[in-house]
Amino acid sequence: MKAAIVKGKGKIEVEEIPKPQPGPGMLLLKVLYCSICGSDVEKLYSPTWDTAPEVMKAIHVNSILGHEYVGRVEEIGSGVTGWKVGERAVDLHIACGKCFYCLRGMSDLCMQGRVRGHPYDGTPSPIPGPPRWGAFTEYVIRPAISRLKVPDNIPDQEAAMTEPLATGVTGVLAGGVKIGDSVVVIGVGHIGAMVLAAAKAAGAAPLIAVDLQQERLEAAKKVGANIVINASKTDPIKEVVSITEAGADIVIIAVAGNAPGVIEQAFEMVRYHGRVIIIGNSAPATLPTGKWMTKEVRIEGAVHMGESMIPSLALLQYGRVNIKPVLTEVVPLAEIQRGFESLRMGKNIAVLIKP
Amino acid sequence: MKAAIVKGKGKIEVEEIPKPQPGPGMLLLKVLYCSICGSDVEKLYSPTWDTAPEVMKAIHVNSILGHEYVGRVEEIGSGVTGWKVGERAVDLHIACGKCFYCLRGMSDLCMQGRVRGHPYDGTPSPIPGPPRWGAFTEYVIRPAISRLKVPDNIPDQEAAMTEPLATGVTGVLAGGVKIGDSVVVIGVGHIGAMVLAAAKAAGAAPLIAVDLQQERLEAAKKVGANIVINASKTDPIKEVVSITEAGADIVIIAVAGNAPGVIEQAFEMVRYHGRVIIIGNSAPATLPTGKWMTKEVRIEGAVHMGESMIPSLALLQYGRVNIKPVLTEVVPLAEIQRGFESLRMGKNIAVLIKP
Amino acid sequence: MKAAIVKGKGKIEVEEIPKPQPGPGMLLLKVLYCSICGSDVEKLYSPTWDTAPEVMKAIHVNSILGHEYVGRVEEIGSGVTGWKVGERAVDLHIACGKCFYCLRGMSDLCMQGRVRGHPYDGTPSPIPGPPRWGAFTEYVIRPAISRLKVPDNIPDQEAAMTEPLATGVTGVLAGGVKIGDSVVVIGVGHIGAMVLAAAKAAGAAPLIAVDLQQERLEAAKKVGANIVINASKTDPIKEVVSITEAGADIVIIAVAGNAPGVIEQAFEMVRYHGRVIIIGNSAPATLPTGKWMTKEVRIEGAVHMGESMIPSLALLQYGRVNIKPVLTEVVPLAEIQRGFESLRMGKNIAVLIKP
Amino acid sequence: MKAAIVKGKGKIEVEEIPKPQPGPGMLLLKVLYCSICGSDVEKLYSPTWDTAPEVMKAIHVNSILGHEYVGRVEEIGSGVTGWKVGERAVDLHIACGKCFYCLRGMSDLCMQGRVRGHPYDGTPSPIPGPPRWGAFTEYVIRPAISRLKVPDNIPDQEAAMTEPLATGVTGVLAGGVKIGDSVVVIGVGHIGAMVLAAAKAAGAAPLIAVDLQQERLEAAKKVGANIVINASKTDPIKEVVSITEAGADIVIIAVAGNAPGVIEQAFEMVRYHGRVIIIGNSAPATLPTGKWMTKEVRIEGAVHMGESMIPSLALLQYGRVNIKPVLTEVVPLAEIQRGFESLRMGKNIAVLIKP
Repeated sequence: MKAAIVKGKGKIEVEEIPKPQPGPGMLLLKVLYCSICGSDVEKLYSPTWDTAPEVMKAIHVNSILGHEYVGRVEEIGSGVTGWKVGERAVDLHIACGKCFYCLRGMSDLCMQGRVRGHPYDGTPSPIPGPPRWGAFTEYVIRPAISRLKVPDNIPDQEAAMTEPLATGVTGVLAGGVKIGDSVVVIGVGHIGAMVLAAAKAAGAAPLIAVDLQQERLEAAKKVGANIVINASKTDPIKEVVSITEAGADIVIIAVAGNAPGVIEQAFEMVRYHGRVIIIGNSAPATLPTGKWMTKEVRIEGAVHMGESMIPSLALLQYGRVNIKPVLTEVVPLAEIQRGFESLRMGKNIAVLIKP
Repeated sequence: MKAAIVKGKGKIEVEEIPKPQPGPGMLLLKVLYCSICGSDVEKLYSPTWDTAPEVMKAIHVNSILGHEYVGRVEEIGSGVTGWKVGERAVDLHIACGKCFYCLRGMSDLCMQGRVRGHPYDGTPSPIPGPPRWGAFTEYVIRPAISRLKVPDNIPDQEAAMTEPLATGVTGVLAGGVKIGDSVVVIGVGHIGAMVLAAAKAAGAAPLIAVDLQQERLEAAKKVGANIVINASKTDPIKEVVSITEAGADIVIIAVAGNAPGVIEQAFEMVRYHGRVIIIGNSAPATLPTGKWMTKEVRIEGAVHMGESMIPSLALLQYGRVNIKPVLTEVVPLAEIQRGFESLRMGKNIAVLIKP
Repeated sequence: MKAAIVKGKGKIEVEEIPKPQPGPGMLLLKVLYCSICGSDVEKLYSPTWDTAPEVMKAIHVNSILGHEYVGRVEEIGSGVTGWKVGERAVDLHIACGKCFYCLRGMSDLCMQGRVRGHPYDGTPSPIPGPPRWGAFTEYVIRPAISRLKVPDNIPDQEAAMTEPLATGVTGVLAGGVKIGDSVVVIGVGHIGAMVLAAAKAAGAAPLIAVDLQQERLEAAKKVGANIVINASKTDPIKEVVSITEAGADIVIIAVAGNAPGVIEQAFEMVRYHGRVIIIGNSAPATLPTGKWMTKEVRIEGAVHMGESMIPSLALLQYGRVNIKPVLTEVVPLAEIQRGFESLRMGKNIAVLIKP
Repeated sequence: MKAAIVKGKGKIEVEEIPKPQPGPGMLLLKVLYCSICGSDVEKLYSPTWDTAPEVMKAIHVNSILGHEYVGRVEEIGSGVTGWKVGERAVDLHIACGKCFYCLRGMSDLCMQGRVRGHPYDGTPSPIPGPPRWGAFTEYVIRPAISRLKVPDNIPDQEAAMTEPLATGVTGVLAGGVKIGDSVVVIGVGHIGAMVLAAAKAAGAAPLIAVDLQQERLEAAKKVGANIVINASKTDPIKEVVSITEAGADIVIIAVAGNAPGVIEQAFEMVRYHGRVIIIGNSAPATLPTGKWMTKEVRIEGAVHMGESMIPSLALLQYGRVNIKPVLTEVVPLAEIQRGFESLRMGKNIAVLIKP
């Protein structure tokens, strides 16, 4: 079968590898679509690629990336119950059940587990079973126990977005967004668009999108933003305070890369006792302690989305989100390098790879 | 000016009364629309109307009912700042600032305050200022301090529904509805429809409506229900458990009158550790304590909606709810008796009176 | 080894049975102390003992009861890591990881799992491993994975109370008790005393205990109650409302048996928007729906205490609870029948069996 | 009467000023004790005292400081109901009822209001009534409406600490401390000691205090800390992680002045998804965004304590806190300058001024 293999900084090539067989408790899934995550792009073009020692590299040579996917059951390993050939599945996180966090009901933070779909990178897996790998390939093997069924009425392309949508849901839940809350989303990339979809579903009013690119802001409107602010033309702090009277209830930061001053900006555009959620990487933030105390701002990281997979499927199944405008291009597996390039250059919002 | 005056059980007549003048701190509002609340109907047709002693009557002869309304500022009393003639206003609750609840930040539960728009019924008002009365009339006097401005893009008829929508929002907030939660609303009358609108805005998935009348269930679909169950034809408990696998996350009861067994039904159709919200009256409920403990069900009343007025305006302003299908008839003030009759007979969902 | 075997209604006899061997993944624990739970007493004296068909009996002939215990590791099965002979252990709940609740992060409500320490009663166990049985015996076999270590500074007798204390913690957490909240505990038996200890640890102020027996109320004072009300002499509703001005913030019901009117009483003594937690059995409750709605009372069951085991150990380890006054008698295993009798007659609060 | 008047940087002198008369709605309170807040010390010794323009000064010449006090009613203005001469009172916050925050039920954050007891500094007051001033004086005038009665069994000296205790309660509530949570308090000054008292009341287990001074840590133990860490001798991050296994559940920062690196330290010693509460000033914090996201840490400011005054009185009334070890010195009003000096030099924890 064909698989896209990481070959070096910015190099990903499609090769023929053996098709795997599902062992006991395992499913063989045919990958229908797999979206390229911003973190995949960051790994492939990591600035430390050439200098980091092997064990510290963001991604290893000969790895297979890809974790935002939907698969269809093609073969079923021995001992598996509850699955039929032809059913579609997405990954749920795997937890050890024994660590500090699992014992306390926070299996999402499991110290041993692996978030769903992490690429097989040669490190020994804490989970029993065959080696795992990412989904930029024709087939993957996955444990049946940590799988969720995809309801029939969700199209394949949208099903592939369940995992990034779950990240958006995680950000919205972390922010405690309630109906009628004013919400700002900074950054309308791949994840930012999913945050917008989830925030719209949650009744954010107004829902404000901030970005530097006008095309992204147009997509933001289609996904549900009431107001869009092009930060290359307008001061977003002034705008947000003016619209919301006292600052936004919640600001969710979904930028990627190393953008400076983003958290500081969110800190200024949120109201007293408002919340700032960090669900994307940016430059280190420096904040004034006294004002933090007086303004009673809450700033919180959010990324572990395991418990958001099930509600994300429900949102797709029952039509509570419109994510089609985000799916800006479908690229065949053979041309995956082009897909990575386009995202790296800031073109496209979500690129789906079709094996 | 004209006003609809309660004359006895089931009798409401339009008479000429003096147009009031706004005193210091007061606004004179022209009533644009006022919707008939289920509680108005219950009061007018109260079964104890003839037998209850005067002080215990649900409503007194010569009262003016009506509290779900929007008004337009026509005159401004002395000392009022921040208001202009022509602006539209809805009522916010009034709180004393001194009672047990106000001192603890729960002004919604103020022991002295009066919920917005309560009819002037001859009892001495705890709030300084001129006598107040309900809004089934051409003009009302209201304190400027407890008023909210209506954003320009909300049509008059929808603005009149801000208060019942706030009740729906209160139910949804009390239920802690999160995106992707399964929600059942029992009863699609006036308030049930608003609960559905608020639950849809909050991302309920699936959102299930239960009623005995098919026309109401059709309106429920338009407001956002994914699935409707006609309880006169199907067992709603079985249906809900089948759809949700383990029972609904949240059931919100919005029936009126004295329907028996509704809370018991909700208790059965909710999942372990699920929540049941009571936002409408029904017959007394008898529940098994041991199962209540084991199933860890939460049952909670909700009705004080003051803090939901602002988010309700935001939902209307930013298009997060579609309540037009609920506005089934507009009736001129002169024909108000007919409006009451139609609701009493179970026709219509919301009836707007136009003075 | 010796074990106390259920022989019929109200009959429990100590017999010699084979000492078990720990299989793979299992620990052999020497039982140090095991407290008699109110539910053990209810099972042994169940009114339907003679009439219920075998599969419906609350407890089967030849069962071993007892789940409130601490054990010391005596032998270790193959494949077990992280345990040493001589360490002490208490049970954590076991969850399947696959059911509706486990997938949603509510493993405490696992549909397949068995709450810790349930007696081995002949029904097939959903958890792989050797048969399990209760702890009114010298030794038990338990899976190593669902065990918690007992910190060294907790005395054996108090360690045996970790599980009932966890029930108290569960009630207090379900009630959302915050520092300075007024809390009433109705019923100062075994569990009620643990609720009082947990509520005191949580900063309840005032903490009020209600019971019919003066000796229990004396113990309640020692555990931390500020005020005790003997409901056989005073009207507890009037008292509570008078002390708290508007009603208690939280009422936790920890009565056993079939006491009538307890939830109705709690409903009256709680404030608007207050909470009532049901953590003990009583007669079915009948409540007025309209007042429930208007008063916005929350009534909630609570019993699944798995996630409270770890905080309970912390409370014991760091001296945040004083439960010694509750340990009113230690009875040797040979005299277990006498221990059951004394609790059934309403003597004692907690009875520890020492094998 | 005598009053302590600010005369310049580090200069505070006792002078004779006219005894005020209570106008309508006002109470004349005899100040029984007033504690010196860390913010009073910061204001008096502000580094910008000589250079800041008058309107920007932290405190003005001729001001009266002091807001942590208890007063006894001596005279009652006209129109006041509910107060008797001889009753003791503490300040509750005053809110306008009209601003963005008040309308949304967050009167604690009122944009117009004045936190209780703020010194009268010559700026026009937004609250109607006579000028107000701080409590380092024999008598103060206060509006009756924003007063809380002090229960009889609280000694005067402890009653004076209600306000700083409320700050501690605010920090503990913001941190969401539950029974059995591990809690670290960094800084055992005036406020840190109150945070410790509140956290102990809330059932923190273990409760860990970190400071540089051994005497403060000894007081911390008396207030309820289980473990104390002298950060001048031990690495507190290593210690906390070792004690708690994965990091503390909650870290509350109560340092004053401009200490560097404190928030960064808290960020390292808290567990995944743990919480850091900032309730004291320190140097600006610089934090890595990626780790913030991955570790899902919540960092939140907290300072507005209005809603914590009532629970604080309850904790004192019902013996849930032991704050006596914190009251390290009582100083007569005439020697107030010495009191300020001692706190500035890091001696004492709380200094009570007795007029």
